[in-house]
Amino acid sequence: MNVGKFLPPTRTLLGPGPSGVAPSVLEAMSQPLVGHLDPSFISMMDEIKAMLRAVMLTENQMTFPVSGTGSAGMEFCFVNLIEPGDEVIVGINGVFGTRMADVAERCGAKVTRVEAEWGRIIEPAQIAAALGKVKPKFVAIVHAETSTGALTPIEEISKIVHGADALLLLDAVTSLGGCPVRVDDWQVDAIYSGTQKCLSCPPGLSPVSLSERAMDAIRGRTQGVQSWYLDVNLLANYWGEGARVYHHTAPISMNYALHEALRLVLEEGLENRWARHEANHNLLRAGLAEMGLGIASQEGHQLWQLNAVSIPEGTDEAAVRAALLNDHGIEVGPGLGPLAGKVWRIGLMGHSSSKENVNRVLAALKELL
Amino acid sequence: MNVGKFLPPTRTLLGPGPSGVAPSVLEAMSQPLVGHLDPSFISMMDEIKAMLRAVMLTENQMTFPVSGTGSAGMEFCFVNLIEPGDEVIVGINGVFGTRMADVAERCGAKVTRVEAEWGRIIEPAQIAAALGKVKPKFVAIVHAETSTGALTPIEEISKIVHGADALLLLDAVTSLGGCPVRVDDWQVDAIYSGTQKCLSCPPGLSPVSLSERAMDAIRGRTQGVQSWYLDVNLLANYWGEGARVYHHTAPISMNYALHEALRLVLEEGLENRWARHEANHNLLRAGLAEMGLGIASQEGHQLWQLNAVSIPEGTDEAAVRAALLNDHGIEVGPGLGPLAGKVWRIGLMGHSSSKENVNRVLAALKELL
Repeated sequence: MNVGKFLPPTRTLLGPGPSGVAPSVLEAMSQPLVGHLDPSFISMMDEIKAMLRAVMLTENQMTFPVSGTGSAGMEFCFVNLIEPGDEVIVGINGVFGTRMADVAERCGAKVTRVEAEWGRIIEPAQIAAALGKVKPKFVAIVHAETSTGALTPIEEISKIVHGADALLLLDAVTSLGGCPVRVDDWQVDAIYSGTQKCLSCPPGLSPVSLSERAMDAIRGRTQGVQSWYLDVNLLANYWGEGARVYHHTAPISMNYALHEALRLVLEEGLENRWARHEANHNLLRAGLAEMGLGIASQEGHQLWQLNAVSIPEGTDEAAVRAALLNDHGIEVGPGLGPLAGKVWRIGLMGHSSSKENVNRVLAALKELL
Repeated sequence: MNVGKFLPPTRTLLGPGPSGVAPSVLEAMSQPLVGHLDPSFISMMDEIKAMLRAVMLTENQMTFPVSGTGSAGMEFCFVNLIEPGDEVIVGINGVFGTRMADVAERCGAKVTRVEAEWGRIIEPAQIAAALGKVKPKFVAIVHAETSTGALTPIEEISKIVHGADALLLLDAVTSLGGCPVRVDDWQVDAIYSGTQKCLSCPPGLSPVSLSERAMDAIRGRTQGVQSWYLDVNLLANYWGEGARVYHHTAPISMNYALHEALRLVLEEGLENRWARHEANHNLLRAGLAEMGLGIASQEGHQLWQLNAVSIPEGTDEAAVRAALLNDHGIEVGPGLGPLAGKVWRIGLMGHSSSKENVNRVLAALKELL
């Protein structure tokens, strides 16, 4: 069997993720390996945890990257919090809410679905109404729905949830690093993200954080956690503060990459980074408007980092995407579910969120439409 | 918060993994990203699957890397095959057999443990005896026990297992790429490995393969798979042959690395690679013998890629390991469980299995003992 080296084509990644990665992150990832219990690696793990806390704006001890992609982080939160028979409420306004409900049911939860049209947010009143009917262990919300471009505000929902003595679980895969995510201020109890969106690190790790309230709920379990790989009781001894107990072998090179990516986030500063994402979104939005194109998601709740652009009537949307990719080297994403054929998803995430990229994609669309 | 760049120290990785990584693998990993649904990436996924089949000596369609470390591959095999109440037999002669039994019980299996002293192999007669008492869905064996350095022969066990109409599940984390692993010849039905041992790719992916017999068992399930992230029914549509259905975002850079690592394995040739591992093991063994040091695992069944070296009476084993690391830049592993304090684990895996490395570690040990 004779397979040649893989030489990836040059792409500008303006889809729903992965986003473009800074050269210094690629460089960090290509450094020679050390062992996962090497003192130098353990110090680096401590720095990653500290930087993740800074990026998530939390003091939570239990903050670290799960050794899998964002979906593994989702499963981590659900398997650790749910015991069979537990009631949970899941907000569903796109692909990832749908997925959360599926994962919750696989853990044995009784799921109450609170649904909104794809592209719209979950309203606090909907959560309040659901809490009038069931008393759940937690309420799960997708902060930034990557499939629709809608950003559900969390502060008011959090007050309602905690008022009902429930925990709040947040999917921050696409929001973290691109717009405010304030874990402690918002009293988020369980949160997971991905590395390949606004942190601009390759996919493969999922930063997570659990509050003390969440840890108390986990300590109070009467049954074991159904996953060994994702059991926080075991992971706590590996990623914890004291002597490390071998669990799995951490993905060394991916952690090198995450360390550098987090360093870049903090070097830029969270506020500056959010402002950059906002400015480039506004630039894209204005340019699209000039071409008569709008953004499909709910007005006033549109993501800066992921824009669901309405496709003009009569356009062969797949042909436009193929031409963007093949003739311009630009990746944008298709719509999913009810939005398939109706929107393109243009991501301006992390390193990919630049004025230059906005101008490039606008120019290419002008040419193609 | 001001964190400096992480600059890993230079290490020669002669522990239980990760092993050293070839420069071309590091280079492959540092290439710019493409999207995970990019046509170029999808072609590369097909090449990875084909190369994995060649390395595993199988025609199994369902052969691909799980997006997690070897322990995620273990969990993948167990969650897909087990339904609550299923009987399974697990061979336990070290850390990883112990872990398999734990994972199986978390899936709801009734586990029959077949145990051997750490350092010894699981004997075919033990499996035959257990099969006289229970009728399990499958028998799970660790091929190469990384914690003890013992290699359990599989051919005879496989005949006994299939004679009892059960499936055979194999942990090949440390064996694959370092010694013969013949999935089809041995009729292995479910197998998982890791990238960071004899494939000499960084940790983060777990190559797996399922036979048609295993897939039939999975198709015949009456209940859903408890894990969403590891559900083969969903993964089959992502890693399958037809149109790709989005599941998770594959770790792009890690797959670049695995592609190049598999290319190197096939370029060297499996037989040559096995012979190299055998020769360097023999060289180490002879050099140790000259120093009066033996290998603790069962005579005739010692791994080429992982050597459990008996520690001389009265030696401060941790001090020797620390001196190897700090003064010689060589990582070796400590003993685990009942072998803690009794052995060092010297790995000669993949890129790390070289005459030069054997001579370096022997010279360093001579100096320190």
